[in-house]
Amino acid sequence: MSKEIGITAKRAENFSDWYVQVVIKAGLADYAATKGFIVLRPYGYAIWERIQKFIDHNLKKSGHQNAYFPVLIPESLLSKEAEHFAGFVPEVFWVTQAGNNPIGERLATRPTSETIAYASFGKWIRSWRDLPLLLNFWNSVLRAEIKATRPFIRTSEFLWQEGHTVHATEEEADAEVMMIAQLYRRLMEDILAIPVEIGYKSDKEKFVGALYTISLEAMMPDGKALQMGTSHNLGQNFSKPFEIRFLGKDGQEHYAWQASWGISWRLIGATVMIHGDDEVFTSLTAQKMRVYVDSREQYTPGWKFNEWEMKGVPIRIEIGPRDIEKGQLTVVRRDTAEKSFIKIDNTAPEIKKLLVQIQKNLSEKAKGLLASKTKTANSYGELKNYVEADAGFVKAPWCGKKECEEQVKEETGADIRLIPLEGEKPAPRCMVCGENAIHMVYFARAY
Amino acid sequence: MSKEIGITAKRAENFSDWYVQVVIKAGLADYAATKGFIVLRPYGYAIWERIQKFIDHNLKKSGHQNAYFPVLIPESLLSKEAEHFAGFVPEVFWVTQAGNNPIGERLATRPTSETIAYASFGKWIRSWRDLPLLLNFWNSVLRAEIKATRPFIRTSEFLWQEGHTVHATEEEADAEVMMIAQLYRRLMEDILAIPVEIGYKSDKEKFVGALYTISLEAMMPDGKALQMGTSHNLGQNFSKPFEIRFLGKDGQEHYAWQASWGISWRLIGATVMIHGDDEVFTSLTAQKMRVYVDSREQYTPGWKFNEWEMKGVPIRIEIGPRDIEKGQLTVVRRDTAEKSFIKIDNTAPEIKKLLVQIQKNLSEKAKGLLASKTKTANSYGELKNYVEADAGFVKAPWCGKKECEEQVKEETGADIRLIPLEGEKPAPRCMVCGENAIHMVYFARAY
Repeated sequence: MSKEIGITAKRAENFSDWYVQVVIKAGLADYAATKGFIVLRPYGYAIWERIQKFIDHNLKKSGHQNAYFPVLIPESLLSKEAEHFAGFVPEVFWVTQAGNNPIGERLATRPTSETIAYASFGKWIRSWRDLPLLLNFWNSVLRAEIKATRPFIRTSEFLWQEGHTVHATEEEADAEVMMIAQLYRRLMEDILAIPVEIGYKSDKEKFVGALYTISLEAMMPDGKALQMGTSHNLGQNFSKPFEIRFLGKDGQEHYAWQASWGISWRLIGATVMIHGDDEVFTSLTAQKMRVYVDSREQYTPGWKFNEWEMKGVPIRIEIGPRDIEKGQLTVVRRDTAEKSFIKIDNTAPEIKKLLVQIQKNLSEKAKGLLASKTKTANSYGELKNYVEADAGFVKAPWCGKKECEEQVKEETGADIRLIPLEGEKPAPRCMVCGENAIHMVYFARAY
Repeated sequence: MSKEIGITAKRAENFSDWYVQVVIKAGLADYAATKGFIVLRPYGYAIWERIQKFIDHNLKKSGHQNAYFPVLIPESLLSKEAEHFAGFVPEVFWVTQAGNNPIGERLATRPTSETIAYASFGKWIRSWRDLPLLLNFWNSVLRAEIKATRPFIRTSEFLWQEGHTVHATEEEADAEVMMIAQLYRRLMEDILAIPVEIGYKSDKEKFVGALYTISLEAMMPDGKALQMGTSHNLGQNFSKPFEIRFLGKDGQEHYAWQASWGISWRLIGATVMIHGDDEVFTSLTAQKMRVYVDSREQYTPGWKFNEWEMKGVPIRIEIGPRDIEKGQLTVVRRDTAEKSFIKIDNTAPEIKKLLVQIQKNLSEKAKGLLASKTKTANSYGELKNYVEADAGFVKAPWCGKKECEEQVKEETGADIRLIPLEGEKPAPRCMVCGENAIHMVYFARAY
């Protein structure tokens, strides 16, 4: 393989360069002509389609339906929930002209669809008979990024799905939030082979406008956490300004309870970061085996081997004249480079078995990474040392006060990534202020 | 059914009101909180998903791949092909601010993706080995509409697919354009049961920047034509400004040949207009039978019958105690209101047969409509009379000159909708100027 098309950066030496090279050179994505935006190329789009298929299928099975809402949102609507607006406004793109004319009210390109959707929900929902409303949107959202673009991880537009549900009671909203978090976990762990930690966000880090946020967080090989997906209980924070009310069975008017949740194409980025050294991500998302026969005569076998290796195809099958003579195929695993021979008659079950082994191998390796990057700090000094030394997740006792959280962030760069759903009993004292600790939380620097 | 939820407008009396009522009250779409935009609701989205499934499956079978490009396009890029820019600029939404700051160069919300995509194509294509490039995008496009919103037909944003392909020769681009037009025809006639006429657009009406455009046009019950889909040969009009060049087998650099093509959610609108009286559009797009069991106890059978009738479900199955006794089901067709009984043992094949009959019935009716709304004019006076009298398509001989085309438009409101692919021999004289006629073309007023 020539230097130009190969991957020249080493993962262990320059993780960031290596990541971008894999994404670009494997043909998953490319920088777009619009600054801060990327193009999702066919090879990357195929992975996105597998993610879509799993989520869409399971959402429909649990009674959710798809819908589409406008990409442009009037400013007056976006600002209806004050905290939400303040949270998003620094990164909103504004449309101010149509054709050659100024428009009356600025229109925001959708940073998320709570406001535009809930204006309609308020019209549609009248009675308990209309609940629950379980909707999902496959679309893109825009958030102006001023920092350097990183494909899939930091881009001014990204593909995602956003779910928006309306319930009669707080308990039903709670159950929805948790059900979705568990669906996301299955996608991440069982399909993408990326182990995640699940827990609550601190008040400082939760979604702007939510009662609480459940987050799924993965640990990357460079020691930084990556937020993989979130599921929010919005309480009645939006139903009140948007007047989403229903006539209950009790004959009284009630404000509804709401949830919203989403995952984005950053899962493709996470998959590259975690499995990119083995580059076998196409196998991860395949429910059926996909076979591509490279019959191009203009390329040599060596050239083809290199190309598919870079693309991360999990299994390469070679058939030469001697193989045919012997009634066998030569099979090369991408993750271990092992070569073996299988009888032609037995191809399908053997390949299937091999794919299961590869998936298991990746999953085990990723679990090992997570374990090796998770530590427990018994003091603030220890936490600082671990974070400085690129330790990944550091579990530490916390009192629940924002001031302590902010001090850690300021002095170490680490956030509270999550408060575990079922946390272990914390050490008795907050490692920052020494007061009573109430949670054992996960700190980390993050993407 | 109460007046509020029923459809009060009559199709024959006020087609426009009737159409909007069916769309809104059947729950296909709703007006959005953003002026000029609509919400695609779950029942409408399900129809869009069936359209997507048919097109996506067939595009993949013929070697096309999906990709995603940014929704924001820098002005300098959009204006690179002058005619194209002039054509779209009156209806472009412009982003001029990000957060609280003005941005350097205005960004257009995508009116179509030729320019943003071809900037990347120019980078990716180097040699004949990279051709053909066959891409498709599922996204939405924005075109500021100043006229009154009409769901699916005239909205400032619409869902569509846009295909963009690059070829080594003009002949290959020609073949692609035609292949896609025929795929679209299959979707419209075989799946949606809407007969269409296929032909070339006149130079005045073709896509801005194209060499030529093939259009598929259907005739609506109110005598107006509806453009259902288009497929363009772009020639080298974009490959030159965007420098899409390749090294040919001959060792020389060549500019590539390109095609683009698309269909949108207006097909849902067309289906409502054509079949909405029978309202059985859910059957049209179903590849498998979909069954919904309405087990809601809070509604009476009569209420449920009315609701599903309005939603246009093609077959209603009733099971009462007497049916169970007799081992039968009561089956009611939506299109003819015929009631029949089938043996429970024989349900699946009988229902399947019935669905085929319904589909055939709809198709026949729609063909009858098209035939009754197509006339031939032997003089300009006749054409005028037919158009005034709401005649639908009027075939007439034309010399090919833009002046004659414009005169007809000005005096009657009718455009040339298409020049048939294999037209009949025209009458000898242009019906406007009396010079040699070269085509027998289809005139109509249109949406």
